[in-house]
Amino acid sequence: MRMYDLIMKKRNGDALTDSEIEYMISDYVAGGIPDYQMSAMLMAIYFKGMSDHETAVMTNAVAHSGDMVDLSGINGIKVDKHSTGGVGDKTTLVIGPIVAACGVKVAKMSGRGLGHTGGTVDKMEAIPGMRTSLDTEEFFDVVNKTGLSVVGQSGNLAPADKKLYALRDVTATVDSIPLIAASIMSKKLAAGNDCILLDVKTGSGAFMKSLDDSILLAQKMVAIGEHAGKRTVALITDMDIPLGYGIGNSLEVIEAVETLQGKGPQDLTEVCISLASNMLYLANKGTVEECRKMAVNAIESGEALNKLIAMVEAQGGDTQVIKDTEKFKKAAYVYDVVAKSKGYITHINTEQCGIASVALGAGRETKDSIIDYAAGIVLKKKYGDQVEAGDVLATLYAEKESYFATASELIERAYKIGTDKPENKPLVYARVDKNSVEKY
Amino acid sequence: MRMYDLIMKKRNGDALTDSEIEYMISDYVAGGIPDYQMSAMLMAIYFKGMSDHETAVMTNAVAHSGDMVDLSGINGIKVDKHSTGGVGDKTTLVIGPIVAACGVKVAKMSGRGLGHTGGTVDKMEAIPGMRTSLDTEEFFDVVNKTGLSVVGQSGNLAPADKKLYALRDVTATVDSIPLIAASIMSKKLAAGNDCILLDVKTGSGAFMKSLDDSILLAQKMVAIGEHAGKRTVALITDMDIPLGYGIGNSLEVIEAVETLQGKGPQDLTEVCISLASNMLYLANKGTVEECRKMAVNAIESGEALNKLIAMVEAQGGDTQVIKDTEKFKKAAYVYDVVAKSKGYITHINTEQCGIASVALGAGRETKDSIIDYAAGIVLKKKYGDQVEAGDVLATLYAEKESYFATASELIERAYKIGTDKPENKPLVYARVDKNSVEKY
Repeated sequence: MRMYDLIMKKRNGDALTDSEIEYMISDYVAGGIPDYQMSAMLMAIYFKGMSDHETAVMTNAVAHSGDMVDLSGINGIKVDKHSTGGVGDKTTLVIGPIVAACGVKVAKMSGRGLGHTGGTVDKMEAIPGMRTSLDTEEFFDVVNKTGLSVVGQSGNLAPADKKLYALRDVTATVDSIPLIAASIMSKKLAAGNDCILLDVKTGSGAFMKSLDDSILLAQKMVAIGEHAGKRTVALITDMDIPLGYGIGNSLEVIEAVETLQGKGPQDLTEVCISLASNMLYLANKGTVEECRKMAVNAIESGEALNKLIAMVEAQGGDTQVIKDTEKFKKAAYVYDVVAKSKGYITHINTEQCGIASVALGAGRETKDSIIDYAAGIVLKKKYGDQVEAGDVLATLYAEKESYFATASELIERAYKIGTDKPENKPLVYARVDKNSVEKY
Repeated sequence: MRMYDLIMKKRNGDALTDSEIEYMISDYVAGGIPDYQMSAMLMAIYFKGMSDHETAVMTNAVAHSGDMVDLSGINGIKVDKHSTGGVGDKTTLVIGPIVAACGVKVAKMSGRGLGHTGGTVDKMEAIPGMRTSLDTEEFFDVVNKTGLSVVGQSGNLAPADKKLYALRDVTATVDSIPLIAASIMSKKLAAGNDCILLDVKTGSGAFMKSLDDSILLAQKMVAIGEHAGKRTVALITDMDIPLGYGIGNSLEVIEAVETLQGKGPQDLTEVCISLASNMLYLANKGTVEECRKMAVNAIESGEALNKLIAMVEAQGGDTQVIKDTEKFKKAAYVYDVVAKSKGYITHINTEQCGIASVALGAGRETKDSIIDYAAGIVLKKKYGDQVEAGDVLATLYAEKESYFATASELIERAYKIGTDKPENKPLVYARVDKNSVEKY
């Protein structure tokens, strides 16, 4: 088998066979196929695509290029959740406890933030003492005891994906739907859960800008999961504006806690309940509607909040800050961005909010940047809200007053104020399972 | 300027600017742009193409990546000729002398053969003593004195093309018309002639299989030449079957001499006169029709043959073999391939003839193969000829009898014999200049 022939085949629009795909991935990781051939292949895939079957076989090959996590040491059905990334997305910290409170195990590996998007592991580490690096035995123990554990990714998961992603990143081949689907799902398959719920963000602040593309990506990923024998469902949720009000690590933990207390923002609460009910559905807890009631009840009863506290305690975190969020360390400086004109908020540029939050110290510009957990933004006005000139649009938090210059300008520009009240937008646009696409 | 952005731009179907193309080529040759980015770019060009302007700018940048030959030491207008390659293509050895006999200088650098296609330099070296590696001064002297010289390529011409071609060759990006045009023309621009005549072969034995693609390639190349200020014309000539009867180095020299003696094969003679008259036209010798008469006259008068003899003598070759081609060294073994059925020759697979000639020792399988100048094939029947079972289709020549097994089977399969006389086909399909495409 020669890589040249495979490139030619794909370039001409023909499908690769299973053994061709498996050879390509294993020989690329082994160093037998040079980067210059793989990048030509990636560009050919960009133009010619891959069938669902090809994508599933490639994902499986990428997953098997490294460790395959064995979660059999955890009792019961384990459900994973993956978000395609956004700004202010603290859903894992809300959903995990809800699902665990309903008796379904959550053994989740999460990532750190880079650039304008945050990561769950960073948010967890905003809780003093919280450990996110557990060995396998302790990870299993925490899940078996409390029902959930969220840790940083460890081991050598899908090294082929790391190598392929690094190459795509420098050859303008990132935004290919089959390649994105294969990249995400390879890590999910390697992570060893029984079922997977995908949260595919859509809108200007998401990787997928259009609903159609988001649905297409969701369908590809669901097909991959099901091909690998894992029940998989995707929700398409809004990321045209940030989710909730808080952006920044401890600010987002506080908002997650408030949501678990039943007093969170309406948008965040609704998205979390939708996601959690579908995770419960995947774990055979009932119909989606029945699972929704269970999720709502887990918040109202306080059981979900108790699960969060139990996990924090088990992972060495200070539960006092969860029980009383006023005890989180405060930022040294506070700055209000105010509206210059009156009207209605017609848009909030999500990416600019994310960049502003990095400028305030809440995120990483490079892998080595140090995070200020107290820094960030609390939006005071959201899409559709009416404002008068001088009203506070957002409050900024930082360790140094000098950070406000850049961040406040970004936030000011991020808000669009119009004269007419904009139309309501759905929070969840669609649900994709192996059989159907249900649009809301 | 970042290569990443250029790949993205081309991938999205946008045109690159002049400075972007110049940066890309110079930085690639300098090693600043890695192969894996260039191969992604080449694949994006394969799918998205390049405008005539982009192609011309790229060709110019590739030409200027190495030495630019200065032919000003040769008096008068210098006209180059380039063939896209075929089997049995000995036209340079006929045309050069015709054009020189009509008073136009031919200072030509040629290549060696590889695989199933031959090279003019190898054919010249079939003449005992013939030197094809002259220093610049001697090259100019020979042209000034005899009117023509054909030598091997020397110096560092278009190194960017060598590097790009090597990459295209392993990434399935060879057959892109703008990239082919840029590759050929970069070397022609660097070779320093004033005008360029292109012989674009078409048909099953040519790189371009269809007439439309051949015309498209010709148009691209003419546009590049004219953009660089060189008068350029292309003829589209047939390579559906081999040109003439001889395939193999001394066999082709013999046929070229016979053609200059006015007793060559009709197809070869016609193609050579068409090509030569257009070269004379480019050198302002008159209308194409007037130039045609001059070319015919140069053969009839014996002046063209005298020019070949003068060049051979000036380059140290044995003129006796030209004056009496019986004096060429003969192959040790001869083998006749005969027709198994009666009918009409409806096709001769050109590539198989080329491969058979390599099997007989006349060509190179690898760059290091040693050529047997006496080996090769003389076709006895051509397209449209009537044959009886047992008639000789072709005679094979080799140094070892064992070579005939493979070669004779290839030739037997190369001939298609049908019951009906096939339609006549043109030898020259079209003429392309900067203003028009004239189909014949």
